[in-house]
Amino acid sequence: MLVVMNVDATQEQVDAVSAAIREMGYEPHAMPGAQRTAVCVTGNKGPVGRDRLAQLPGVRDIISVSKPYKLVSLETKTERTRIDVRGRIIGGDELTVIAGPCSVESEDRTMAIAERVRSLGVVFFRGGAYKPRTSPYAFQGLEEEGLRILAKVRDEHDLRIVTEVLSEETLEAVAEVADVLQIGARNMQNTALLKKVGRCDKPVLIKRGASATVEELLMAGEYVMSGGNHRVIFCERGIRTFGDHVRNTLDVSAIAAVKAMSHLPILGDPSHAAGKRHLVPPLARAAVAAGADGLLMEVHTDPATAWSDGAQTLSIEEFQMLLEELKRYREAFTPAPAAT
Amino acid sequence: MLVVMNVDATQEQVDAVSAAIREMGYEPHAMPGAQRTAVCVTGNKGPVGRDRLAQLPGVRDIISVSKPYKLVSLETKTERTRIDVRGRIIGGDELTVIAGPCSVESEDRTMAIAERVRSLGVVFFRGGAYKPRTSPYAFQGLEEEGLRILAKVRDEHDLRIVTEVLSEETLEAVAEVADVLQIGARNMQNTALLKKVGRCDKPVLIKRGASATVEELLMAGEYVMSGGNHRVIFCERGIRTFGDHVRNTLDVSAIAAVKAMSHLPILGDPSHAAGKRHLVPPLARAAVAAGADGLLMEVHTDPATAWSDGAQTLSIEEFQMLLEELKRYREAFTPAPAAT
Amino acid sequence: MLVVMNVDATQEQVDAVSAAIREMGYEPHAMPGAQRTAVCVTGNKGPVGRDRLAQLPGVRDIISVSKPYKLVSLETKTERTRIDVRGRIIGGDELTVIAGPCSVESEDRTMAIAERVRSLGVVFFRGGAYKPRTSPYAFQGLEEEGLRILAKVRDEHDLRIVTEVLSEETLEAVAEVADVLQIGARNMQNTALLKKVGRCDKPVLIKRGASATVEELLMAGEYVMSGGNHRVIFCERGIRTFGDHVRNTLDVSAIAAVKAMSHLPILGDPSHAAGKRHLVPPLARAAVAAGADGLLMEVHTDPATAWSDGAQTLSIEEFQMLLEELKRYREAFTPAPAAT
Amino acid sequence: MLVVMNVDATQEQVDAVSAAIREMGYEPHAMPGAQRTAVCVTGNKGPVGRDRLAQLPGVRDIISVSKPYKLVSLETKTERTRIDVRGRIIGGDELTVIAGPCSVESEDRTMAIAERVRSLGVVFFRGGAYKPRTSPYAFQGLEEEGLRILAKVRDEHDLRIVTEVLSEETLEAVAEVADVLQIGARNMQNTALLKKVGRCDKPVLIKRGASATVEELLMAGEYVMSGGNHRVIFCERGIRTFGDHVRNTLDVSAIAAVKAMSHLPILGDPSHAAGKRHLVPPLARAAVAAGADGLLMEVHTDPATAWSDGAQTLSIEEFQMLLEELKRYREAFTPAPAAT
Repeated sequence: MLVVMNVDATQEQVDAVSAAIREMGYEPHAMPGAQRTAVCVTGNKGPVGRDRLAQLPGVRDIISVSKPYKLVSLETKTERTRIDVRGRIIGGDELTVIAGPCSVESEDRTMAIAERVRSLGVVFFRGGAYKPRTSPYAFQGLEEEGLRILAKVRDEHDLRIVTEVLSEETLEAVAEVADVLQIGARNMQNTALLKKVGRCDKPVLIKRGASATVEELLMAGEYVMSGGNHRVIFCERGIRTFGDHVRNTLDVSAIAAVKAMSHLPILGDPSHAAGKRHLVPPLARAAVAAGADGLLMEVHTDPATAWSDGAQTLSIEEFQMLLEELKRYREAFTPAPAAT
Repeated sequence: MLVVMNVDATQEQVDAVSAAIREMGYEPHAMPGAQRTAVCVTGNKGPVGRDRLAQLPGVRDIISVSKPYKLVSLETKTERTRIDVRGRIIGGDELTVIAGPCSVESEDRTMAIAERVRSLGVVFFRGGAYKPRTSPYAFQGLEEEGLRILAKVRDEHDLRIVTEVLSEETLEAVAEVADVLQIGARNMQNTALLKKVGRCDKPVLIKRGASATVEELLMAGEYVMSGGNHRVIFCERGIRTFGDHVRNTLDVSAIAAVKAMSHLPILGDPSHAAGKRHLVPPLARAAVAAGADGLLMEVHTDPATAWSDGAQTLSIEEFQMLLEELKRYREAFTPAPAAT
Repeated sequence: MLVVMNVDATQEQVDAVSAAIREMGYEPHAMPGAQRTAVCVTGNKGPVGRDRLAQLPGVRDIISVSKPYKLVSLETKTERTRIDVRGRIIGGDELTVIAGPCSVESEDRTMAIAERVRSLGVVFFRGGAYKPRTSPYAFQGLEEEGLRILAKVRDEHDLRIVTEVLSEETLEAVAEVADVLQIGARNMQNTALLKKVGRCDKPVLIKRGASATVEELLMAGEYVMSGGNHRVIFCERGIRTFGDHVRNTLDVSAIAAVKAMSHLPILGDPSHAAGKRHLVPPLARAAVAAGADGLLMEVHTDPATAWSDGAQTLSIEEFQMLLEELKRYREAFTPAPAAT
Repeated sequence: MLVVMNVDATQEQVDAVSAAIREMGYEPHAMPGAQRTAVCVTGNKGPVGRDRLAQLPGVRDIISVSKPYKLVSLETKTERTRIDVRGRIIGGDELTVIAGPCSVESEDRTMAIAERVRSLGVVFFRGGAYKPRTSPYAFQGLEEEGLRILAKVRDEHDLRIVTEVLSEETLEAVAEVADVLQIGARNMQNTALLKKVGRCDKPVLIKRGASATVEELLMAGEYVMSGGNHRVIFCERGIRTFGDHVRNTLDVSAIAAVKAMSHLPILGDPSHAAGKRHLVPPLARAAVAAGADGLLMEVHTDPATAWSDGAQTLSIEEFQMLLEELKRYREAFTPAPAAT
């Protein structure tokens, strides 16, 4: 850490900063510069009492050097993490594709979608039984009935279930059905929920919050890992910007940055980012090209009558065409690991 | 609602849109323009099947006319809501000031702060027993012990307690102590928690999420009100922007806009927005000048050793000076209600 | 256009709106809805007096239906524009690669870079003679001397020159050397300059401003085209967001959206978006995967001693590797045109 | 400056960094920490070769300590700058109010507005002769004719003229009429124009760009001051965020921050931020409460027929009411200078 003094800071003020650092058990190193003095702090393993130093007279700024994440860091574990979900790997050589409707709908429709996506070689199925909606008057998901249908999808087709957990109180029920527990963007900093999934034995897919920095996304992973659950998968699904041509701005640089900073896998969600069907394929391709380990996509046998998010949902035919493109792409081009 | 067709949409496509609208039970009104046709939908009381229409051939765009919020709207209830918290009103003529430390600290320190702020005429006390932190390694609050201390503050001083509820599972315990339940910015779209506080009989203070639109903030209030709890207070605490000179950008226009759109009170939180003590007083003044019904502020007898957020916490002396300014301000100037 | 009335608007207010619309020479169509009335305006070819209507009593909102751009629109010209730059096409089947140093440096170094990139098959050379810098104390470019060196690059190697024009007063001198005039992000809404390049006979590459919407980018193109210069190329170079892991957030969805809205070509600039060399290749791949017609990239024989932007500049070797990947990518995968 | 090494950086890498720093003529100070080493650079007066160091093997990050601005800084000149504009002070004890129409309209209308605002005690008149519009088809201002009308306003009423200069080529003509040259938000980083007004003898009002940081705003001022023109006034007019309830988000914290960082005056522009008339008064009050030295506001005798920006323009009566409030406010409450 570096404590930057004002241009007109007195020697007494610099000394007081040094004394406070020493009192905290660390080493101060005053560095007189041409314009101003800075005091380096060494010997600290964890966070220093930053706030206290910031308030001493003559202090202008405090600059952190260390990063706050540990367990998720590629500096801590230099080998990429491969997550085994009932025999299928997320974070391995193969592109992971997770597909299905936005919400679990009636049993018939859901089973029909499941059958179609499975027939295309997909082995991960998505679908929300509990839906976080902006309006309390919008469809909130089929809830328990939705879980029952997902269990049937899981048992009758060879599909691994990825579904959102919205609430501490329904976590147990969701975890009985889910192969991967999804934390949605709105709950990325719901620390109570993060702590609780950190004690589960199911992999956790964490979607980046709409205004979360990459560091905050990594820290959400740190919450889960520090609870003992090391099977964490990240997902970039678009951030909130001034842009009004899409629902969210897919930040492909976050995908590349997470690959350079963490050993954990990261997926892209082009559907929620695009918000419009015709933009889903280019965003899917871009996410993969930026280094994503896979994609989470909304697919439906009849998008026009989907119960939610229909406008951004691919038809089976559109999805099949995209899968083939991605396959061709992946054959032509295996992304080299981004070096730091 | 308005369905905008492509420039080259055929008459058949326009007719298909009209037929779909009729099938939904509404009235279509095709409006041929100079460049393109638009179809108005009338007769709908709630949301129309927007996604379905968006997917019909020849449709370029769907434009909503109605706003999704009802119970919070000033159009629904034209009289301002005054919320009685054990004899003190939020949303009335008097400016509400809620002050206290970021986190509840030891009993001695917390009681000392409580005594000092009460002696300045403040009747609402803030302090977190449960803290949502970006890092799992940061201080997470005193939890149950914190609640016990807050109960003592409430019982020994004439102070109303405003404290954050982080989790469905601790809601009951928090509600026993709190006079006002705070939903933090990170949980503004935690719909499970919003639904649960909607069934409580305690007023709820909802902080705007760092990337929530004003409409989304109002919808969070709608979640609580539609659950039966009509005592909702909003709070602007700064949004996330590219700006790097403060922790968050205090959006005073949101305060003015909420006053123009909703009958519910709204406060400002200059401490979290500023992130630096010397910017707290100007932001406090600006929030009040924009029409805020009150302020939520971090105050401590010894900010330099505060357990969290010390750098943005006012000392008792600074706080007292600010209170006097705000009093003078309020006497000189009662904000006229913003008209729509 | 649609004029939305307040819930409690009177019939007189609706009539007054209709009368005002009629007075402007258009047709009003009052649509009484379940909650409120909206008045559709038809018969207008250009912008209606929006501000005047917005101010009539009882009016809540004005909603535009038409888009403000015309000449750049894919609805106006449905065929993709191919721009011929001395025998090489931008916007055709081949990926356009524009490479070179951030600033033009000494003649020797610049010629050496030019030779190397040309030897890799590149036919467009970039390099700034005039540099827009945040600080007046930073290197502002070699100016006239830089232009002289660029002319030499152009004449001695078979390279087309893409260079920024910063100022109306130097436009003539720049246009003598440049094959493509670049308008930088900071000047995207410098309308005086846009009008002036609109009267030039050189193609114009317009970089998206850091906080420009896609519509504003298109309108900048409209400025140039309406001046008579129809050879416009757009470039996405990253927008300003709260993200702090890169210099700018490359908005690949803008690339896909521009392809769906306009007939003009669009390139990606991964160097300025990334700000860090190791993130340039993944962003380059993502831009191409999203549908970019080409890339603008900073390349240097010795990035470590580059006079500006060295940290985001690729070495010749890194650039060569990336070119090969992109070639393989392009062979495997020709992007289907995004349909609206 | 601080060069942060990777956790696994070797001693050789640290030595190479130190050697490079020495080669640049500065002093390296290696600080081995618990996790990683950092190398402090001292002895530098200006910017160090940051890019070069960033590219050395083992280097993870470069952290700047010094701020890039000098002439505008309150550390350089600790006394507040008062700018005399023909006998009236901007940056003094009195609140500066600059009022008038968005665009200069016909002579009759403009003179009528001028007379009315002057009769309310206002001594600064605003009005654009050259207008920067998003669309080339929108009204671009009366240009030379507008300047002639402004000269008449200046000569017949005791009004100081504040008007925008859009272009290097019209600067001379504008400067003949203007008492204060305005640089608009879109041109805040038009460095050619900044350099040119830096050589003028007229005060310059610089509006913050919609996505400019406070530091970039200060650097725009630095451009003008380093050219020799020390009479610079800043203006906060709202930034671009995801918020959709206003045209731009008025960042009152920028006003407070500029007062804490610079000796130069700063105004607020509530009209462009609000975009809607009913939000102008609360934003005007908030800007003043945050410490603004004055306000720039759009006022018209007949906003309903204003040629541009009518929806955000106050009528004379609304403006008069606001002026009285601001006067009362200013009497009750003189903002204490924000301390650093």
